Amino acid sequence: MKIIVVGATGTLGKKVTEAFGQKHEIIRVGNTSGDIQVNIEDETSIKTMFEQAGPFDALISTTGKAPFVPVSEMTGEAFKSGLLNKFLGQVNLVLIGQHYINEGGSFTLTSGILADHPVAAGTALSAVNGGLNSFVIAAAPELKNGVRLNAVSPNVVEDSPAYFDAFPGEIPVVMDKVVKAFEKSVLGIVSGQVIKVY
Amino acid sequence: MKIIVVGATGTLGKKVTEAFGQKHEIIRVGNTSGDIQVNIEDETSIKTMFEQAGPFDALISTTGKAPFVPVSEMTGEAFKSGLLNKFLGQVNLVLIGQHYINEGGSFTLTSGILADHPVAAGTALSAVNGGLNSFVIAAAPELKNGVRLNAVSPNVVEDSPAYFDAFPGEIPVVMDKVVKAFEKSVLGIVSGQVIKVY
Repeated sequence: MKIIVVGATGTLGKKVTEAFGQKHEIIRVGNTSGDIQVNIEDETSIKTMFEQAGPFDALISTTGKAPFVPVSEMTGEAFKSGLLNKFLGQVNLVLIGQHYINEGGSFTLTSGILADHPVAAGTALSAVNGGLNSFVIAAAPELKNGVRLNAVSPNVVEDSPAYFDAFPGEIPVVMDKVVKAFEKSVLGIVSGQVIKVY
Repeated sequence: MKIIVVGATGTLGKKVTEAFGQKHEIIRVGNTSGDIQVNIEDETSIKTMFEQAGPFDALISTTGKAPFVPVSEMTGEAFKSGLLNKFLGQVNLVLIGQHYINEGGSFTLTSGILADHPVAAGTALSAVNGGLNSFVIAAAPELKNGVRLNAVSPNVVEDSPAYFDAFPGEIPVVMDKVVKAFEKSVLGIVSGQVIKVY
């Protein structure tokens, strides 16, 4: 299977790339590193990425950012930056990628626990993650040629200790469990699912 | 109570304005009509609206649009237009309005059933509604001075027969029931809730 991993050099992307790389061909995509570079905020850049990668069987996205700012200090511009990056960026990987992916292929996006369980200063991420989850359940049934679409929604992960204090009460999840969620999406049969790892 | 209704001339806004107008002072806000005009995609326009309205006790938003387009034909630009209007527009009513609202006041936004129950061509609206729901549960606990925030998430409503065919299997809800949901948010005590009317 030929798998494009967007965000391959991030905390999650590295582990996903390692795991899938055992048995599959991986195209590592990063913002500034990897086999191919992409700016997910730029539709032309996304198209160029797909042209360079050629036909593929699965796309895994572990990329995207949104500001971590208290509501009292949040500006519309800051909020919008999250919408255009982690939200619209990942949505465009699907909207554009649907015209390049092989029959029976799959898209797997990354949302996160904040969609359902908010933390202080996490409002923009909550909103982005909730939007992504609803996008997935709505867009999946419309995809053609047996193409599937899911989201993996992880809790804070063990490899990101810098975030532990921002997620009081949450038990950091082991990376292997998150990787398994991506395997369920890519190698399994489900579609339109938000695979929660928490 | 002084209540700002943004979208006061829409299908939902008209009924909400009628009901709350019995006992409360209503400031009707529309895009081109009403007591005050606002462009919810423009932060300056939102600020001007709050300056013109003066201190208030509740804001009800029944406004916002997103494109109704099949996934196979959806462009990033079309999707983005929904993010900037119904999603970011309503978020900015809260982000900006928090600095103008009276102590103990409330914000009530409108999302919709598509967040959880998708229909063909409704992907952008699903994504926007899901994002709004998560915004509400995340932002509400951070609001200061006892200010509350909820979303009303209605099914297709009886006053919009043109949409019935697009929502197969859904039983259109009576307007009175939707108005009651707004009353629960504005006159009740809940915060951080998605009040589903379906």
